[in-house]
Amino acid sequence: MTIRAVVWNEFLHERHDEAVRAIYPDGIHQTIARALAEDAGISVSTATLDQAEHGLEQARLDETDVLLWWGHRAHGDVSDAVVRRVQQRVAEGMGLIVLHSGHFSKIFKALMGSPCSLRWREAGERERVWAVNPLHPIARGVGPCIELANGEMYGEPFVVPEPLETVFISWFEGGEVFRSGLTYQRGAGRIFYFSPGHETYPIYHDPQIRTVLRNAVRWAHNPAAAWKDVAVAPNVPVSAARETIVQRGASLHKAGEAGFR
Amino acid sequence: MTIRAVVWNEFLHERHDEAVRAIYPDGIHQTIARALAEDAGISVSTATLDQAEHGLEQARLDETDVLLWWGHRAHGDVSDAVVRRVQQRVAEGMGLIVLHSGHFSKIFKALMGSPCSLRWREAGERERVWAVNPLHPIARGVGPCIELANGEMYGEPFVVPEPLETVFISWFEGGEVFRSGLTYQRGAGRIFYFSPGHETYPIYHDPQIRTVLRNAVRWAHNPAAAWKDVAVAPNVPVSAARETIVQRGASLHKAGEAGFR
Amino acid sequence: MTIRAVVWNEFLHERHDEAVRAIYPDGIHQTIARALAEDAGISVSTATLDQAEHGLEQARLDETDVLLWWGHRAHGDVSDAVVRRVQQRVAEGMGLIVLHSGHFSKIFKALMGSPCSLRWREAGERERVWAVNPLHPIARGVGPCIELANGEMYGEPFVVPEPLETVFISWFEGGEVFRSGLTYQRGAGRIFYFSPGHETYPIYHDPQIRTVLRNAVRWAHNPAAAWKDVAVAPNVPVSAARETIVQRGASLHKAGEAGFR
Amino acid sequence: MTIRAVVWNEFLHERHDEAVRAIYPDGIHQTIARALAEDAGISVSTATLDQAEHGLEQARLDETDVLLWWGHRAHGDVSDAVVRRVQQRVAEGMGLIVLHSGHFSKIFKALMGSPCSLRWREAGERERVWAVNPLHPIARGVGPCIELANGEMYGEPFVVPEPLETVFISWFEGGEVFRSGLTYQRGAGRIFYFSPGHETYPIYHDPQIRTVLRNAVRWAHNPAAAWKDVAVAPNVPVSAARETIVQRGASLHKAGEAGFR
Repeated sequence: MTIRAVVWNEFLHERHDEAVRAIYPDGIHQTIARALAEDAGISVSTATLDQAEHGLEQARLDETDVLLWWGHRAHGDVSDAVVRRVQQRVAEGMGLIVLHSGHFSKIFKALMGSPCSLRWREAGERERVWAVNPLHPIARGVGPCIELANGEMYGEPFVVPEPLETVFISWFEGGEVFRSGLTYQRGAGRIFYFSPGHETYPIYHDPQIRTVLRNAVRWAHNPAAAWKDVAVAPNVPVSAARETIVQRGASLHKAGEAGFR
Repeated sequence: MTIRAVVWNEFLHERHDEAVRAIYPDGIHQTIARALAEDAGISVSTATLDQAEHGLEQARLDETDVLLWWGHRAHGDVSDAVVRRVQQRVAEGMGLIVLHSGHFSKIFKALMGSPCSLRWREAGERERVWAVNPLHPIARGVGPCIELANGEMYGEPFVVPEPLETVFISWFEGGEVFRSGLTYQRGAGRIFYFSPGHETYPIYHDPQIRTVLRNAVRWAHNPAAAWKDVAVAPNVPVSAARETIVQRGASLHKAGEAGFR
Repeated sequence: MTIRAVVWNEFLHERHDEAVRAIYPDGIHQTIARALAEDAGISVSTATLDQAEHGLEQARLDETDVLLWWGHRAHGDVSDAVVRRVQQRVAEGMGLIVLHSGHFSKIFKALMGSPCSLRWREAGERERVWAVNPLHPIARGVGPCIELANGEMYGEPFVVPEPLETVFISWFEGGEVFRSGLTYQRGAGRIFYFSPGHETYPIYHDPQIRTVLRNAVRWAHNPAAAWKDVAVAPNVPVSAARETIVQRGASLHKAGEAGFR
Repeated sequence: MTIRAVVWNEFLHERHDEAVRAIYPDGIHQTIARALAEDAGISVSTATLDQAEHGLEQARLDETDVLLWWGHRAHGDVSDAVVRRVQQRVAEGMGLIVLHSGHFSKIFKALMGSPCSLRWREAGERERVWAVNPLHPIARGVGPCIELANGEMYGEPFVVPEPLETVFISWFEGGEVFRSGLTYQRGAGRIFYFSPGHETYPIYHDPQIRTVLRNAVRWAHNPAAAWKDVAVAPNVPVSAARETIVQRGASLHKAGEAGFR
């Protein structure tokens, strides 16, 4: 079964900043897309902020198995309607991989329910991404750690919920640490946050980072049919109860009536 | 140290439905407040939907240690600004106890990042709330289970994130089960969801239920000073790094500049 | 890649109790093995208590991807050496599926570090196994619940660590609930505990139960090479540190010396 | 309510190594005990390996609320009977704080069910213990991090189960990271592993480290009465079922018979 991945990028730095364009001439999304395409089991396309509905219209999301998200300076420009749509699709079973500065994206904050804040420094310092769960499906093939000659420091506290699993923790030359790979589940959807990926360093060209991205897409893929009514709270009438029961007590609802939302 | 608890109630059923008023003549919030007041270490007040800012103005929330939330038919009438304010206070360290139909409140959905949907039936059937972690601080003193002669059935799947801890699971006469007591953490704040509490049954008059409520207030209380800047992502300049480092590589930011949000 | 599964059974009830033999004429392990063999991607064999080293010699375990464990009356007869060997293989990456009364097996208690106690009743009562995480890989294809006409009641509190995920919760006719499907991770190995399966009821003939078993084998399979030295704590000498450092301070160890265990 | 803490130490390095004695003249346990005694709500005593039953006879453990454990070179000399006794007491509700090289103690490995292995280097390098959950009860009052001029490097992967909460992560000068503060629960007992504390450095004299130890004792304290029968699996006869049921189906057990173990 081919996994249908979509790489979303706000695609602004690459057009406005020469330093970024030098590293990602056709956009971070294209570099990531090529990394994913090295796995013949992944079929990949891209979407960007400037497209209609940011390239994430309902029909397309319905045919997306895993969405990757890179955003930074334009989080506020992402439409709330699209964010709600993506959040619903995650609950239905779509995988989501949030990258780097996406920690402050509307979609990640909405899914975490937490500020998702952190400390940061852009000094081109060494970062070393350690696998704390090295045989986790997302870390396989990476070895004990990933050495990045230049990383943007992201430092703890990273104000997110306790994860399902901590997969990676980063060491920074300037003295900080950061939980750089975390897994979550929301409804039927799996979420992986992965912090490496600053726009002024060639991190998405790193072979180990690219392995993590491919692994993460496979891990996040839920092959089950979409859970379309995941957000609905259906009434189970007395007549449909699995055990025979008799209606008792007062009730505000009439038979068959929908609940309050 | 006295714990300052506020019981919030939308306070509509009790004014519009005779059956509810018979059980909670001055409102569910007052019954819960009296339960909490049995603990001399808890100082309790109430707030309702119809008050200005729903009784949850910033100054009051700043002096609230633990907020309890009961809402049902008017979730949509709660102001988004108040919801954001409560969510920020939870991240800062305020405890939050979400009760029964509050599973669909704006604040709970915002904190969970998940649909919070479930199955339901209002048949007055027997509910038995089992302590799966019986010596957890929230379950202490309750014994193996709480027998409720009449409960509203809430059934799995309950579409919430994997909890930190499952404290209670309910059995229903009609054949369903439900994770009726779950703990979460968001920033410095602790959250407890507790499902018993339907408005047409006298559940908040039950002595064991009242013990759980008091326990939960104590558990949710974080005595630390509020983490006011929990949502801020400060830059740590090279000069302030804990290890001596030298600026390297390209940068989009100028020294001292704030990050994007 | 074919998954190599081994179904282990103490294989005593079937030889000594006519009621059990009537349901599992050639042993519970053979019935489970046939369930797994319906998945062409699983290659399955069996092992029993009465074999040399209980059929679990080192060479065989080294070629086992997922082990299933059914034991009841002879937990104490399982060799401690074999238990240690299985525990080491789980840490290396072998999956383990512990069934029903295996909650009190030496291997499950060793992996959980907890008493693994529960309440029980053998009354042939109805059991309903609800999927609380219905699109989890282990629950896929099962639907909302599994109806068992006769189940042995296992009741909470089930004294195990908080699981990674709660996949199933059972309802019992006599009034109890039980977390009947739980996931854990130990080292590189995944563990699934699944409680249905009493020897005097035909539970492993149930099509949905058989689907869960196949799902669980696929979920528990870690295709990575075995983490052979998972239990070793290697010294990283100063000369091999990834950052240049200088030896400082007092030391009890000489260079290259192994640590204490 | 005064919390009764016992600090256990193998007490060998301090008697055999001058370098250690210079830092801990009367033993690491006495230094830790004095740290705890600064909290008037903690009543503290000590126990050592060379005492009868290592100072942990049943009657004493029964009156211990929280046990702290420091061991290193003599893990193998600790009696298995004492380890089982401590493990049972943890399940009953006694708190346990495992320090530094105690990661390889029999009791910690028994409770984790995992190898508890790690990487290490004794180079006196800088260690910085970051609070990732800074308002957690164990981290309160410590600030963003603890700076240790000399630490023994403990590096990931640390092969333990996913914790309930990650409270601290350490940065090391030589380039590694380590989850240095982790919480677990086993039965009614809370467990905290805290890695700083090498015998040749004065770490337990550090004021912030001492704050963590006091915090941890308060956090680990379960004031409930001991859960004496936590490991027992009682039968619930049909006559005692909370719902009326009728015995059905075959059974291997006679009425009132104990289950297999």
